[in-house]
Amino acid sequence: MTVFTLAQLAKELDAELHGDGAVQISGLGTLKSAGPGQLSFLANAKYRGYLEETKAAAVLCSPDQVAFSPVPALAVKDPYLAFARVTRHFDRMPVAVAGIHATAVVYPSAQIDASASIGPNVVIEGDAHVGANAVIMANVFIGARTSIGAGARIWPGVAIYHDVEIGPRCNVHANTVIGSDGFGFAPSSEGWIKISQVGGVKIGADSDIGACTTIDRGAIEDTIIGTGVIIDNQVQVAHNVVIGDHTALAGKVGISGSSKIGSRCLLGGAVGVAGHLEITDNVQVLGMSLVSGSITKPGVYASGAPVDEHARWRKNTVRARHLDDLFRRVKLLEKARDSE
Amino acid sequence: MTVFTLAQLAKELDAELHGDGAVQISGLGTLKSAGPGQLSFLANAKYRGYLEETKAAAVLCSPDQVAFSPVPALAVKDPYLAFARVTRHFDRMPVAVAGIHATAVVYPSAQIDASASIGPNVVIEGDAHVGANAVIMANVFIGARTSIGAGARIWPGVAIYHDVEIGPRCNVHANTVIGSDGFGFAPSSEGWIKISQVGGVKIGADSDIGACTTIDRGAIEDTIIGTGVIIDNQVQVAHNVVIGDHTALAGKVGISGSSKIGSRCLLGGAVGVAGHLEITDNVQVLGMSLVSGSITKPGVYASGAPVDEHARWRKNTVRARHLDDLFRRVKLLEKARDSE
Amino acid sequence: MTVFTLAQLAKELDAELHGDGAVQISGLGTLKSAGPGQLSFLANAKYRGYLEETKAAAVLCSPDQVAFSPVPALAVKDPYLAFARVTRHFDRMPVAVAGIHATAVVYPSAQIDASASIGPNVVIEGDAHVGANAVIMANVFIGARTSIGAGARIWPGVAIYHDVEIGPRCNVHANTVIGSDGFGFAPSSEGWIKISQVGGVKIGADSDIGACTTIDRGAIEDTIIGTGVIIDNQVQVAHNVVIGDHTALAGKVGISGSSKIGSRCLLGGAVGVAGHLEITDNVQVLGMSLVSGSITKPGVYASGAPVDEHARWRKNTVRARHLDDLFRRVKLLEKARDSE
Repeated sequence: MTVFTLAQLAKELDAELHGDGAVQISGLGTLKSAGPGQLSFLANAKYRGYLEETKAAAVLCSPDQVAFSPVPALAVKDPYLAFARVTRHFDRMPVAVAGIHATAVVYPSAQIDASASIGPNVVIEGDAHVGANAVIMANVFIGARTSIGAGARIWPGVAIYHDVEIGPRCNVHANTVIGSDGFGFAPSSEGWIKISQVGGVKIGADSDIGACTTIDRGAIEDTIIGTGVIIDNQVQVAHNVVIGDHTALAGKVGISGSSKIGSRCLLGGAVGVAGHLEITDNVQVLGMSLVSGSITKPGVYASGAPVDEHARWRKNTVRARHLDDLFRRVKLLEKARDSE
Repeated sequence: MTVFTLAQLAKELDAELHGDGAVQISGLGTLKSAGPGQLSFLANAKYRGYLEETKAAAVLCSPDQVAFSPVPALAVKDPYLAFARVTRHFDRMPVAVAGIHATAVVYPSAQIDASASIGPNVVIEGDAHVGANAVIMANVFIGARTSIGAGARIWPGVAIYHDVEIGPRCNVHANTVIGSDGFGFAPSSEGWIKISQVGGVKIGADSDIGACTTIDRGAIEDTIIGTGVIIDNQVQVAHNVVIGDHTALAGKVGISGSSKIGSRCLLGGAVGVAGHLEITDNVQVLGMSLVSGSITKPGVYASGAPVDEHARWRKNTVRARHLDDLFRRVKLLEKARDSE
Repeated sequence: MTVFTLAQLAKELDAELHGDGAVQISGLGTLKSAGPGQLSFLANAKYRGYLEETKAAAVLCSPDQVAFSPVPALAVKDPYLAFARVTRHFDRMPVAVAGIHATAVVYPSAQIDASASIGPNVVIEGDAHVGANAVIMANVFIGARTSIGAGARIWPGVAIYHDVEIGPRCNVHANTVIGSDGFGFAPSSEGWIKISQVGGVKIGADSDIGACTTIDRGAIEDTIIGTGVIIDNQVQVAHNVVIGDHTALAGKVGISGSSKIGSRCLLGGAVGVAGHLEITDNVQVLGMSLVSGSITKPGVYASGAPVDEHARWRKNTVRARHLDDLFRRVKLLEKARDSE
């Protein structure tokens, strides 16, 4: 078990220590649930009531909240960020062992750094490259000529096709697929004719990709994900999409082919983006919205319709089909009024 | 081939036998398609026409429909439920063999019940536990300290991370991921800082989970799925979600972080639930609706918009952007009328 | 490296050669990016400006565009289709080797054609059948009695359950699941009672299925996908769905149980189709639309709402809940006007 003194954490986080620096911290908890040995945090002043009653061993909070803490506190400007930094100490994720597991199938021409960890049943094809300290977990497939950057972690069952580049320190969660064919077919009199997808995928450093997400290879040129991009579970990124640095895609987002998303954008859950359009930097789109045209101005956008009681929804839905007609009727009424 | 006499099934289902109890049943069919040896059922009186013309060997129906059956019948109060109970006899799912396949990689500290079946290329990490008669199929990954309850079945390619509890008799379909990291990152001047997800996942007894579904581990505390919960394919359950007993989530539902769904709820296909909200017990939400606030009253809710012909949809969609303006215009018209 | 002369390609594509037939083509590029040795194409006259400035080694275009090409050209009636046909020559997908990899687990009763390629860690259960020249890549699971047609390719991590038929030359991308249980449960006083899904899945010839897609087995009869159907990533096809020949389902489409989609339909990204309905042939549904009733007339349909600026969306969304009321108010205004 990892144990830190509060004084140690104060030093690491450059925090102001209030109370006993010898208090031992061996885990994390929420203000409501934390008990002995657990560190908690207050990031939002509206939860101060929980702070006042916490049984945590210590808390992280802003300087102006210290007075309300019944337990030792570490004061920092951004308690949420400080908490984020401290969480890694208490991660119970098993430590990977360097070396290639006996059951892994690694083609002779693949280059695997001696410090990398290649788990059971991993398959790595020809001329692939795995960098220093990278962790390739069980049942992962890595195709020919694909490279995995130093310090990256690929969780079980991920399939990465040929000619893909994953940047250093990226994290790819289980059963995600990177480099599958884009959805490209030409219509013909005999049906759909497949367009071989000869581009690859490039993912920058420090990007984090969720589980069961799919990122297609490019049709001719590459699909490109920037640096420090965070992508949640079940996101679909089609061929030749470009995603700017530090953009966040929440769960179930879908981005159609050749669209370009700017930097520092936030796309909410299940947002859909049509193809061949552009979203500029610093755009936020709320959950379940449809982006069907380019967005050229930073700001917040939405189109999702929140639920209503069934009876009322049903009436309004029927009416919505006649909305254009209603506008015409109102226009006529206005004309009648104005001609009086 | 499994064969039952109609009399045997009548006894098992506590049904009233009408006709020849010696009729042999070796399979199932719909009223329209069933032939010799096949049992069918009528659950909805509006399909009585199909009953009257069925070529099934026998049927399950309610007592008041027996008179319309041209073939031997088993009368029960709830024919659909009786049919559900009988289907398992005709499931052609291969029977699992107890023991650990030679190609499986099981860490020495893992505890595997002797009656459990561990398939080819399965990887089970340290201190994991697999209960009696559990079936772990090919290429499954089970992380450290995770426990799989007695009688559970985990289909091929499922990845279950460390510190997850799967209850007895649960069924988890292929390539689903349980215990992946929640989407937790703190913004900083250097970009997103990952919040290690130190909670786990707890799934109660008798829950059924579809294919390519993702259930994230908790940030600090656990993500919790109740007892007898049924979850379809491609459902996304974010960190710290709580789902009550006997709730059903249809395909492609997405539930954002920390939301709490009550018991006996029914969420239709592709319903999206925003984060940090609560849905009370016995709530039904129709497909493709967005729940963006808490629902405190049981009932049926919806927000999905059904398709219309393209030309009309286009006109109405343009108008919808000016709806607020239209309300104002109508208000002015009303004022003009009322002042006359 | 594959190299063709332009004259060779002209012959293969039955194209009219303009310029030097000895030009060597070793790759593909877009009009904007292509350089020496690369072939490009112009499919849409509005990009003629790119053609006029291209640095490609040669281009595919329609006869009326040849005059604008600064480089050798192959004139064809349908340049996009011709390009599609030529792309396969430049696909860098590794060539599969016939035979069964030493680490594959193939049950003795499975029948594997000698020309098929069975990759590492593949598991093939009893009485399954793999046809001539089929390629089964790493970590794939194939259940009992399932058959994979000649020339089919199954990418890594795919799980195909028992009693599934995959037609010749089908292509199934990584981590897709075919034959998982349909979402069938009968309510009872003890909770949900599972209905064993005893049907299978049948997929016709030349169909192409994306990554992380799920196709459930039928409840009693089979789920059926036609010939030449193209299905993108993360599509969900529920039990007993029937999909007609040459239909295209874009990413994230969801089709609920027992619905029947016609031939040559195009369903856009994330379209949702409710259960037990029918869509006739030649129907196109735009992205993120909800089909909640049958569509009996060919044509284009939609219901997605495009994003708006947050402030305006918010106002309009509040108003939309009172739409029925607004219609009544306008009706009253019209009565007042008409009675004057």
